[in-house]
Amino acid sequence: MGLGRVGLPTAALFAKAGAKVTGVDVMREVVEETNAGKCRLKDEPGLAQIIRETVKAGTLRATLTPEGPVSSADFVVMCVPTPVDETKSPDYSSIDKVSHTVGRFLKRGSVVIVESTVGPGIVEEMVLPILESESGQKGGEDFGLASCPERSDPGNIVKNMSSVPRIVGGYDAVSTVLVAALYESAFGVKTIKVSDPKTANAVKLTENLFRDVNIALANEFALLYEKLGVDAIEVINACATKYNFMPHYPGAGVGGPCLPSNSYYLISEGVRAGNIPYIIRLAREINDRMPDHVVELVGEALNEAGRTIRESRIAILGVAYKPNVKDVQLTPVERVFSRLKEMGAQVQLYDPMFKGERVFGLLVRDKLEDAVRNADCIVVGTAHNEFKNLDLRRLSKIAKKGAAFVDARNVVTAAGAVQAGFAFRGVGRRPR
Amino acid sequence: MGLGRVGLPTAALFAKAGAKVTGVDVMREVVEETNAGKCRLKDEPGLAQIIRETVKAGTLRATLTPEGPVSSADFVVMCVPTPVDETKSPDYSSIDKVSHTVGRFLKRGSVVIVESTVGPGIVEEMVLPILESESGQKGGEDFGLASCPERSDPGNIVKNMSSVPRIVGGYDAVSTVLVAALYESAFGVKTIKVSDPKTANAVKLTENLFRDVNIALANEFALLYEKLGVDAIEVINACATKYNFMPHYPGAGVGGPCLPSNSYYLISEGVRAGNIPYIIRLAREINDRMPDHVVELVGEALNEAGRTIRESRIAILGVAYKPNVKDVQLTPVERVFSRLKEMGAQVQLYDPMFKGERVFGLLVRDKLEDAVRNADCIVVGTAHNEFKNLDLRRLSKIAKKGAAFVDARNVVTAAGAVQAGFAFRGVGRRPR
Repeated sequence: MGLGRVGLPTAALFAKAGAKVTGVDVMREVVEETNAGKCRLKDEPGLAQIIRETVKAGTLRATLTPEGPVSSADFVVMCVPTPVDETKSPDYSSIDKVSHTVGRFLKRGSVVIVESTVGPGIVEEMVLPILESESGQKGGEDFGLASCPERSDPGNIVKNMSSVPRIVGGYDAVSTVLVAALYESAFGVKTIKVSDPKTANAVKLTENLFRDVNIALANEFALLYEKLGVDAIEVINACATKYNFMPHYPGAGVGGPCLPSNSYYLISEGVRAGNIPYIIRLAREINDRMPDHVVELVGEALNEAGRTIRESRIAILGVAYKPNVKDVQLTPVERVFSRLKEMGAQVQLYDPMFKGERVFGLLVRDKLEDAVRNADCIVVGTAHNEFKNLDLRRLSKIAKKGAAFVDARNVVTAAGAVQAGFAFRGVGRRPR
Repeated sequence: MGLGRVGLPTAALFAKAGAKVTGVDVMREVVEETNAGKCRLKDEPGLAQIIRETVKAGTLRATLTPEGPVSSADFVVMCVPTPVDETKSPDYSSIDKVSHTVGRFLKRGSVVIVESTVGPGIVEEMVLPILESESGQKGGEDFGLASCPERSDPGNIVKNMSSVPRIVGGYDAVSTVLVAALYESAFGVKTIKVSDPKTANAVKLTENLFRDVNIALANEFALLYEKLGVDAIEVINACATKYNFMPHYPGAGVGGPCLPSNSYYLISEGVRAGNIPYIIRLAREINDRMPDHVVELVGEALNEAGRTIRESRIAILGVAYKPNVKDVQLTPVERVFSRLKEMGAQVQLYDPMFKGERVFGLLVRDKLEDAVRNADCIVVGTAHNEFKNLDLRRLSKIAKKGAAFVDARNVVTAAGAVQAGFAFRGVGRRPR
């Protein structure tokens, strides 16, 4: 149920392992493309081939109609999105809807698996009652139910799905054993059996919030060290030589389908239980403010170059929320872009994953040089591989003389940028 | 300068490496014990032998008088404590005092090394001017100056000092090279050369605050998961199977000479620079409140057993701030102890490191059984090795019938405690 960033590779990998898989989605073009053996996700290495082969072999097909596949399935896997709304409240409407659909057609003896990321308790208190009332069956007796949250990293999903251990928390003991056996045999991964679905969902949130909080902490160090004249990247790399330190790096903020939303699933359950997770909430706020800090650095660097944001020509290199993926979901670069536009800049975009496509309503240039030509300021928004070895002297000749350079993603050195003639600023960097 | 937890092993290891070392301290008994070849630190494996041998060989001696040793030294190493006062402001009075002393007797051409943990900028803005005005010499020209923060873990200092890379930030380039060469040759460790003293001090604080914040995050998860009926330890152990997660565990709080103070050195510089590190401050507050949560769990567990804290006999197992060290500096167990006393409990202490000594004004029992006898509640405050395999059934027979058991350090399982007949609570645990 759901052929998105997680559902499509999950379907394809189950089909590759020999299962007969039907992917159900609400978008006609997704279904048609998949049935034509085409892969919508261009940034998932290995996936296109698996889809081509499994569709050709007849083990993978897609449909808009849930009734047939659900009523005949031994396992039903929910991979629908769980975003947050504008007030940062979890939006469980897709989970709600798909639970009704699955419940309506559920075969006796089948097992329902929730891969979607949800707050601890949502499977027990929302999915289960809907399945039971729609099916007239009893969970843990007539049908099985388990959480097995996806643990993959966009851009590495095929590799992750066959290497990262899966967490399995069944509503009943049989579901835990069955689902663990399913993933072990289909994906060749280890499984960690936990007490119940809410524990499995807590694991998924805890590991993602660990990342979100530690990136926020890196950003907090960056903001302070900029003021103290200390280079945060130098500090973090030196810390990484200690056995009990794990490096995280500051940047333009945190985007994507997981980290900007996951905190709110837990905060929501926390508020309900009368126990607000303060650090997690604060971390989210710090990460959300980083794009504004990037704009502040743009203002500072342009000021040093004797210019204003207003009427400057600014080239943003990288719009994706993270390196080497074709994904602008909740990318922090969008706020950098819109703030600069609001302040009167003329912005050009370049991103190797989006050449010639429209992003934020603007056509992304085909060539980096076209975006940078005559720019008053260059801003690095994403650390794509292509930006790791920028020829700063050449860029400085293409851009306006004495232009500014703001590195929000630690792809250049301050010394290199300054030597090339740029007025330099970077998140967490000393300006020289 | 300073023969405490860091200074004594540093002196001993330099002496062992063949240097002629004089340790200066203000406490007569420290000097006398050291000169007698005795080791004050009983919980540092390997140290006693090194002190015995180096004192016997004449390469290590101690004195109360700084003039002679400072005026003849090629290297002067500052290892004085940098605590915080009651308002959590950094107390740099020892650094100030020792800087005056060292400056007064400083030999031309010698190098001053600051191992003490200080805020970024303190060496440049406080130590350097004092050294210059007292000596009439110029730093970086007439004498060298570098930060080389100690990076050791109490209880493992001898091992850490010869394995964990050292961070060296010189005020001038020659100091960096000299001090790096000194530590590499004396301790056989790698060195990481950084831009300046303030960067080296930022590294030390960043790596320790990473730990403090992540323990606070684990505590935040624990507090919430208790309410949601999820076992935080189960969750954290499952998370640890993911490649980008590092496990930290909840507990009774954070103590010792470093973590409870280090945040405030950075907060203090942040306040001065107009950039308060919010997460770091919040983390400190969360960790500081954990002892109160332990007391709350004691109240809950006793309540389940039909008793009040008032008039209960409570055995606290473990008073040290962390496992297997003889150190109660800022131990969170002290607040657990004092709160329980205030509320009218009759408290017994047992700790294998402090048998027969007075701690918190109370005599620590010689035997675990004597502390536990007739107890209404047992509280585990420190995860000493001795407590890792507690025989719960036996303890339950020694304690009062139907007693409570509160595990603040994850040394027993809830199931084991309940089966032994205890009313169980634990930080981050399900009560069954």
